[in-house]
Amino acid sequence: MAVPPSTRPHRLLPLFLGLFQGVLLLFFTHFVTYDEPSVQEEDTNLVASQVYSIFPFFQDIQVMLVVGLGLLMTFLPRYGFSALTHNFLLLNFSMQWALVLQGLLHHFHHGQIHLDLHKVLISEFAAVTVLISVGAILGRASPCQLLVMATCEIPVYLASEWVIVTSLGVLDVGGTITIHIFSCYFGLGVSKALFRATQQPLHPKETPTPRSDLMSLVGTLILWVFWPSFVAVLCQPSDAQHRAILNTLLAMSASAITTVVASSLLERDGKLSPGHLQNGSLAGGVAIGVVADMAMPPAAALALGSLSATVCVLGFRFLTPLLGRKFRLHDQCGIHNLHGLPGILGAAASVVAVLVASKDTSGSHPSQLSRVGGNASMVMEGQVGARGAGGQALYQAAGLGVAVGASLLAGLLTGTALRLPCLARPPERLCFDDSPYFKIQDRAESPGPDSDAEEGAVALKEQVQ
Amino acid sequence: MAVPPSTRPHRLLPLFLGLFQGVLLLFFTHFVTYDEPSVQEEDTNLVASQVYSIFPFFQDIQVMLVVGLGLLMTFLPRYGFSALTHNFLLLNFSMQWALVLQGLLHHFHHGQIHLDLHKVLISEFAAVTVLISVGAILGRASPCQLLVMATCEIPVYLASEWVIVTSLGVLDVGGTITIHIFSCYFGLGVSKALFRATQQPLHPKETPTPRSDLMSLVGTLILWVFWPSFVAVLCQPSDAQHRAILNTLLAMSASAITTVVASSLLERDGKLSPGHLQNGSLAGGVAIGVVADMAMPPAAALALGSLSATVCVLGFRFLTPLLGRKFRLHDQCGIHNLHGLPGILGAAASVVAVLVASKDTSGSHPSQLSRVGGNASMVMEGQVGARGAGGQALYQAAGLGVAVGASLLAGLLTGTALRLPCLARPPERLCFDDSPYFKIQDRAESPGPDSDAEEGAVALKEQVQ
Amino acid sequence: MAVPPSTRPHRLLPLFLGLFQGVLLLFFTHFVTYDEPSVQEEDTNLVASQVYSIFPFFQDIQVMLVVGLGLLMTFLPRYGFSALTHNFLLLNFSMQWALVLQGLLHHFHHGQIHLDLHKVLISEFAAVTVLISVGAILGRASPCQLLVMATCEIPVYLASEWVIVTSLGVLDVGGTITIHIFSCYFGLGVSKALFRATQQPLHPKETPTPRSDLMSLVGTLILWVFWPSFVAVLCQPSDAQHRAILNTLLAMSASAITTVVASSLLERDGKLSPGHLQNGSLAGGVAIGVVADMAMPPAAALALGSLSATVCVLGFRFLTPLLGRKFRLHDQCGIHNLHGLPGILGAAASVVAVLVASKDTSGSHPSQLSRVGGNASMVMEGQVGARGAGGQALYQAAGLGVAVGASLLAGLLTGTALRLPCLARPPERLCFDDSPYFKIQDRAESPGPDSDAEEGAVALKEQVQ
Repeated sequence: MAVPPSTRPHRLLPLFLGLFQGVLLLFFTHFVTYDEPSVQEEDTNLVASQVYSIFPFFQDIQVMLVVGLGLLMTFLPRYGFSALTHNFLLLNFSMQWALVLQGLLHHFHHGQIHLDLHKVLISEFAAVTVLISVGAILGRASPCQLLVMATCEIPVYLASEWVIVTSLGVLDVGGTITIHIFSCYFGLGVSKALFRATQQPLHPKETPTPRSDLMSLVGTLILWVFWPSFVAVLCQPSDAQHRAILNTLLAMSASAITTVVASSLLERDGKLSPGHLQNGSLAGGVAIGVVADMAMPPAAALALGSLSATVCVLGFRFLTPLLGRKFRLHDQCGIHNLHGLPGILGAAASVVAVLVASKDTSGSHPSQLSRVGGNASMVMEGQVGARGAGGQALYQAAGLGVAVGASLLAGLLTGTALRLPCLARPPERLCFDDSPYFKIQDRAESPGPDSDAEEGAVALKEQVQ
Repeated sequence: MAVPPSTRPHRLLPLFLGLFQGVLLLFFTHFVTYDEPSVQEEDTNLVASQVYSIFPFFQDIQVMLVVGLGLLMTFLPRYGFSALTHNFLLLNFSMQWALVLQGLLHHFHHGQIHLDLHKVLISEFAAVTVLISVGAILGRASPCQLLVMATCEIPVYLASEWVIVTSLGVLDVGGTITIHIFSCYFGLGVSKALFRATQQPLHPKETPTPRSDLMSLVGTLILWVFWPSFVAVLCQPSDAQHRAILNTLLAMSASAITTVVASSLLERDGKLSPGHLQNGSLAGGVAIGVVADMAMPPAAALALGSLSATVCVLGFRFLTPLLGRKFRLHDQCGIHNLHGLPGILGAAASVVAVLVASKDTSGSHPSQLSRVGGNASMVMEGQVGARGAGGQALYQAAGLGVAVGASLLAGLLTGTALRLPCLARPPERLCFDDSPYFKIQDRAESPGPDSDAEEGAVALKEQVQ
Repeated sequence: MAVPPSTRPHRLLPLFLGLFQGVLLLFFTHFVTYDEPSVQEEDTNLVASQVYSIFPFFQDIQVMLVVGLGLLMTFLPRYGFSALTHNFLLLNFSMQWALVLQGLLHHFHHGQIHLDLHKVLISEFAAVTVLISVGAILGRASPCQLLVMATCEIPVYLASEWVIVTSLGVLDVGGTITIHIFSCYFGLGVSKALFRATQQPLHPKETPTPRSDLMSLVGTLILWVFWPSFVAVLCQPSDAQHRAILNTLLAMSASAITTVVASSLLERDGKLSPGHLQNGSLAGGVAIGVVADMAMPPAAALALGSLSATVCVLGFRFLTPLLGRKFRLHDQCGIHNLHGLPGILGAAASVVAVLVASKDTSGSHPSQLSRVGGNASMVMEGQVGARGAGGQALYQAAGLGVAVGASLLAGLLTGTALRLPCLARPPERLCFDDSPYFKIQDRAESPGPDSDAEEGAVALKEQVQ
């Protein structure tokens, strides 16, 4: 099969990536070191305890991003290899790119940048935004477009995260506002600007098969299991972390059950939709992030999990088709239903939680309101105390506004840039297909009698002949 | 395709689940809180160390139950999505139900129920019993029937566990008697009462394909890897936990090898049976649970692992067909071979271990006999000391008797209840099939030239004929 | 289908394995115990902290070996069940065999052998060599041949590891030289001697399908995620372990990106080769092992990761075909590209690192050069100090020489032994096929209308129309 002309500019991919890797190497050579080996006994114990307290969580998160999220996106039956590989490539690229930018932005005035596991973790969080945003245009964008998108998204994320968390002092331990909402609207902005007014017709390769749906569900389950680690990793190892883990467990458990209820009620024949299950079960984890470590009753976590699953399933059933028809907005994986709507719900919940908590603990020490990880917690507790709960509630809302506004704007601009012809957007007939990107045995070619061709084919052949 | 009338009562599913979720929310709102935030430095360290000592084990167990056990049951080629989803749904439902019942039963007299990770873990263990019992009727029961079964099984389990562990003082750190044996005979009781005297004919969709067998084997391997965490999580972090981990590793390693030996010897042409591998490799983990933390030599763990694998394979080869023919007892996943027989073997081993250990350590402190987690250990050590080894051995046997008796009786009653017509048991032709429950692209419909083959063959066949 | 005569000698498999398990049991009964239960409070804490510091790493490594490595080798579409099962069986067999030999070799003079998690871990490392070596002959060897190979390889590995690490004092915390290089050349030796001068023609069942490539990629991703645990588990929990984790993360991240660059540049149409991705992404992890804990800048880890991925992809593209043509050397999984070449690169890097580090820290305490786990570190630091950096560099090179020489020689001898007719090498037409070893529904048999069809259908359709 001759290579269609449209796939030729892929040469850009290795050039771009190779150049990036070279620049990264130069940057690391000149600016990045490890901490000096500590000779003191005490320091050694400190490092060891850091490794123990973060590393297991870090590994859990790596499994989520590399295996879980990758598998979740293999629901497109002929695009599984691309989904898994692009997810993996973007994670690595975005993580390295975030490491560089963070180094430049935050640590430059210290001269040398001292690398540690905590900085790598923060860069992974930045990379997550890219992996989520991709969901809006999955299958219709070339790897080059995805890399350019990542290149644009990471700096905007870092700036927006700085404004929201450091500058506004918004409480968001699980990244609901800074990661989920930001990446959702960035992705939608990209999709809108990239596909413009053209409505995307249903592509014949777009329909999941039973097998691809099963693989995707396995991805969901992996994400579901490890989500508490994602939410709780940055809490201080104490009450707050314990509470964050429990709240996330409760919210996700309620999500799982409510998804079944909602999906079953919404479909005419009472059957469950695989897409609802794959996404709704995780909605609670998105929503709970912003309030997970706050002093709220367990029932609130259950309620939030149930609500967000309901909202997610309703979104899939009614909002996504509506946005497609009215605004010609294309959202391949339904990221607005999984990350957008539950995220907004979570942000709203954080406003309520801040207000309620202040009433319950009036007169008590503000540190009971929230304990966030690292040095930031002192600042935050101080802020909440100084601002009062009403002020903090306003700031929570402002954070939501910043996240939505900045991401939509940046997404629209990025999407426009992705229309550059040199980025090789695949033609319609090659969408949702691995074959333009991978040397994979073509499914349309005759496989010969020994191929995997599974059972039916051979048996059938005998009948035909 | 018109919806067959038999699937209509599925409306019951969302109603039942929704109601449950509402009641749970009410219950949590009124009775459940987290511990008060601890201001003291010491308490903070205590909570942190609890999180560290339990949480990694807890995550391992979640992977086992959600991913490993789910995949293990995907060996039915057209029922994979159902197996995975029902397993996931039942885990969440049963865990929440167990949380409620435990709260009511054990903690009510304290007024408020203080939720922590340990209580969630105990509820997960309760949920495991349901997930195992399902294996007996997998593919032939509706989701409604499964939920009713879970509703009945959890309270009986909690009562039986209370009698066996708290009241009789049976030593069973890995849940061999309380979880594995109980759930096995409960499931068999349900199967017997549900299917009555009708022998279940071999269903055409019941035969695994190479691919579904492969997925199932991946599930086995995930269970195999994390099993030591399941057995050792409730041991105190000391010698006993270390020993429990090592004993489980040895027993499961011996199981893996012995399964190959036994399966290869039993089949006429020396080929291995996938079903034997998928189950036999785990038999050692079931058997070792009851003695894992006891003072016994490593060789005993190896021997127990080998023996239980042999018994499991022999059970598949001879006992399951016999029970089917003689007693018309249907056991879809062979839970009697994986959980029943090795469990009884383990219980017998615990009797021997208690007797032998007492001789070896005569005169020594009874605490060397067993160290079980939490405050319970004190009680148990005291009991063993007071009873003497012979007495304890009798109690171990009594525990086995209680588990078998209670579970069989409760299972038979539950199975009778499941015959209620409103619970929508699927008709024979819709057994082992995802299509009544999920909006999955029907494998029998014509898919068009771009679809993922699968389908094509059947559609094509119709064209050809 | 009648059983072909060639598969009859499989009776050897259960006999051999059963005998082994019996001998092992005898050995354990007489020589192996656990440590005495420690009554002192201090000892208890020590054991607990050992469990916590090793066990999470140990579980990660188990997932890598059982699930990750197993899935990686399922790229042969009709040999997936065998790949997964043989990997699992060999891991257990080799681990037990290494436990026995280690007990005999190292601990016999202490009388009783005290089993602990650390000894099990060391035995797992020994087993890894077998799992890697198998890659060279995957699909063309019978289970009996694989077991005999494991029986021969483990003692040679233990001896060579003793010479390299204990006797020569080579620094190799991640097992690059002792495990990866050793197992690679052992496997190539076996392949050369087993297949002799006969060039292996391309087998029709050898070509991966999209689905088997996808499963294999999932295996790669699992290995990729947990690799830092493999490299860092034996470091002391301090700076060195922290650095080893970070270096491995950086090297593997660079590998992932560079693999895409290299594969894309090397293929004519710019498409990526699945085989390159599956292996190249891991090359950095192989190379970094020998220098991971050394005092080197982060940029060096990135550079090493990039270089080794490049070398790996170049190896697949040019060296493997060349070796096949010129030397008639068959390397089914390309272990020379994943373990051999990057391993040699890593060994060379260790020579440079030792020399450079000594210049940087001239006058400073030699302990800054390297901190290796356990009691061995003291010895090594002393050695490096006594030898000087130049001497240590020579020893690193000598270690590489010993590993290559010993493994090649032993591999050739083992391969010759595997030619024994009683070991039942499968005939060509039954290579790469599960059916001689497993009772799996035969893909060539008529499956009936409910079977799971696949690609063939479309091809067939064209023929029919």
